[in-house]
Amino acid sequence: MRVVFLLTVPIVEMCFDPQDLHRLGDHATSFSNAPTADRLAEFWGRHAADAEFLVTGWKTPPLTDAMLDMAPKLRAILHAAGSTRHLLPPSVWSRGLRIGSAREALAVGVAETTLGLIIAGLKGFFPASRMAREGGWLIDSNRVQGYEIREMYNSTIGLIGLSKTARHLLRLLKQFEVKVLATDPHVDAEEVAELGATKVELDELMSSSDVVSLHAPALPETRHMLRSQQFKLMRDGAIFVNTARGMIVDEDALAAELRTGRIWALLDVTDPEPPAPDHPFRTLPNVVLLPHIAGAVGSGCLRLGRSVVEQILEFASGNPMHGEFSAQQWAILA
Amino acid sequence: MRVVFLLTVPIVEMCFDPQDLHRLGDHATSFSNAPTADRLAEFWGRHAADAEFLVTGWKTPPLTDAMLDMAPKLRAILHAAGSTRHLLPPSVWSRGLRIGSAREALAVGVAETTLGLIIAGLKGFFPASRMAREGGWLIDSNRVQGYEIREMYNSTIGLIGLSKTARHLLRLLKQFEVKVLATDPHVDAEEVAELGATKVELDELMSSSDVVSLHAPALPETRHMLRSQQFKLMRDGAIFVNTARGMIVDEDALAAELRTGRIWALLDVTDPEPPAPDHPFRTLPNVVLLPHIAGAVGSGCLRLGRSVVEQILEFASGNPMHGEFSAQQWAILA
Repeated sequence: MRVVFLLTVPIVEMCFDPQDLHRLGDHATSFSNAPTADRLAEFWGRHAADAEFLVTGWKTPPLTDAMLDMAPKLRAILHAAGSTRHLLPPSVWSRGLRIGSAREALAVGVAETTLGLIIAGLKGFFPASRMAREGGWLIDSNRVQGYEIREMYNSTIGLIGLSKTARHLLRLLKQFEVKVLATDPHVDAEEVAELGATKVELDELMSSSDVVSLHAPALPETRHMLRSQQFKLMRDGAIFVNTARGMIVDEDALAAELRTGRIWALLDVTDPEPPAPDHPFRTLPNVVLLPHIAGAVGSGCLRLGRSVVEQILEFASGNPMHGEFSAQQWAILA
Repeated sequence: MRVVFLLTVPIVEMCFDPQDLHRLGDHATSFSNAPTADRLAEFWGRHAADAEFLVTGWKTPPLTDAMLDMAPKLRAILHAAGSTRHLLPPSVWSRGLRIGSAREALAVGVAETTLGLIIAGLKGFFPASRMAREGGWLIDSNRVQGYEIREMYNSTIGLIGLSKTARHLLRLLKQFEVKVLATDPHVDAEEVAELGATKVELDELMSSSDVVSLHAPALPETRHMLRSQQFKLMRDGAIFVNTARGMIVDEDALAAELRTGRIWALLDVTDPEPPAPDHPFRTLPNVVLLPHIAGAVGSGCLRLGRSVVEQILEFASGNPMHGEFSAQQWAILA
């Protein structure tokens, strides 16, 4: 089987552990080295005719029908990253190509970051460390810089959207004594219960959760899905976590609710990114802003390459590819 | 069975969920209400003669032999907190009393906080949020304020001491793709392996870990167990986490290593507490100081009461009490 990596060398080095590539080498008759960015088109011209598997990823340009026409032997495209929305032409489905991505692997890292933010948020890491830096201490009180420190124990966590990230987060949360609420129009109450949560409507989730964590896909129909009405429903002292996408939130409405000091927000994403240097998400004391680092960063990138290598080996041994998705699923993926 | 709570009303309200007390009520023939602080001695005088179970906790004064002499029917003492070092006279063992504490419950909360600190530390939550507050953003780089952002994936976590906290942390870490090293003079390699870690010597742990987390007991023989030699062995960019006790660390040596900027520290404890307002742990950019909040705070306190209630019910039904310890174990408990 011939695997072509349509990736630049720096991306291959960032996302593929040599040990994982070695596993692929044992099974592939040959695979090509990655080109530099300015040679991607020429490189594809040389290798497309033989390609059975195409590996794409960060900085791979959108695939065109002309490019796919050059690869009559192509059987599968494996994307070593999350979103394939702008990568694939719709003809991949009529061509009978099988498509997989590393979104499950990406989701694991995002879920781990989200768990870290939930613990940090409830436990008040940010205001407490700021207070300690300013010379203060906490004595016989749980209140620091306007935040009442709590724990995971007995807390209610509300998940908006049962994405891959939310599902891995649910696995992690099984180790904690928390109640989990979830809302997702595509998942019925029975499946939600099997995942370890209770299905509720969005507004009930907003009003009943100590932590609200957003995991909906960024699609035209989810734009500004969370508005003033939803944020006003949140409990005093509740925490809003966004490791999904900024566009799902009406940010002006969120900023307005935050200005009251009533709720807290831990945001890894905004719309646009970066936000203006004087944006309230940067300056309000009850907001913690991270520069979009929930997903694969550093060692976490290697998880993406490993997922792609494993999917090629799964395909080769006749098993389902764990990151494969259908045309129908693609339509509701971010 | 008669249960006497030698606790003030505010501590009972903080640590005991009414639902948990209700479970006890179903099984106890009677149990006493908690007194206010200035009435503890008088209260004990009235109830000691009938007491079969004594519940102690935060702000309970040390128990004396004279106090125990007043309670001939006493069978067990349950402490709704962690350390019993200054609570118990040594005669509790010769009196045949059974002793339990909520240290397992306390350990769960500390372990959860420690996991949060490990994720936050590796992922660079603190420098990244500081940078975002100052107007910056992270573009095509993992480096923020001198820290190289990483993930849990492929990281090596080193645990010094296999306390209850470390053991619960090991359970939580099973959900992550990390390598765990551990060192503890009282636990052999086989048991360490069963817990999910690899036993190594302290110096190897210091030099091989991305995160070093301290979980040794605070005893005369562990004082300043971590010195300059150990901190110098840590990898560039490695993170030291202390949710145990400050006295186990030679803090001047840690501060000296931190001043080089080579390592990071996330500290929930210091010696003494609080540290001076201008202490380097408060001012160095590569230190995050928390005001001793890893243990039970807010909702987490209710876990302590639940543990005590469950131990009384365990005793009553002839089962082992999950938080019970022997004279031998007491000698090496913090």
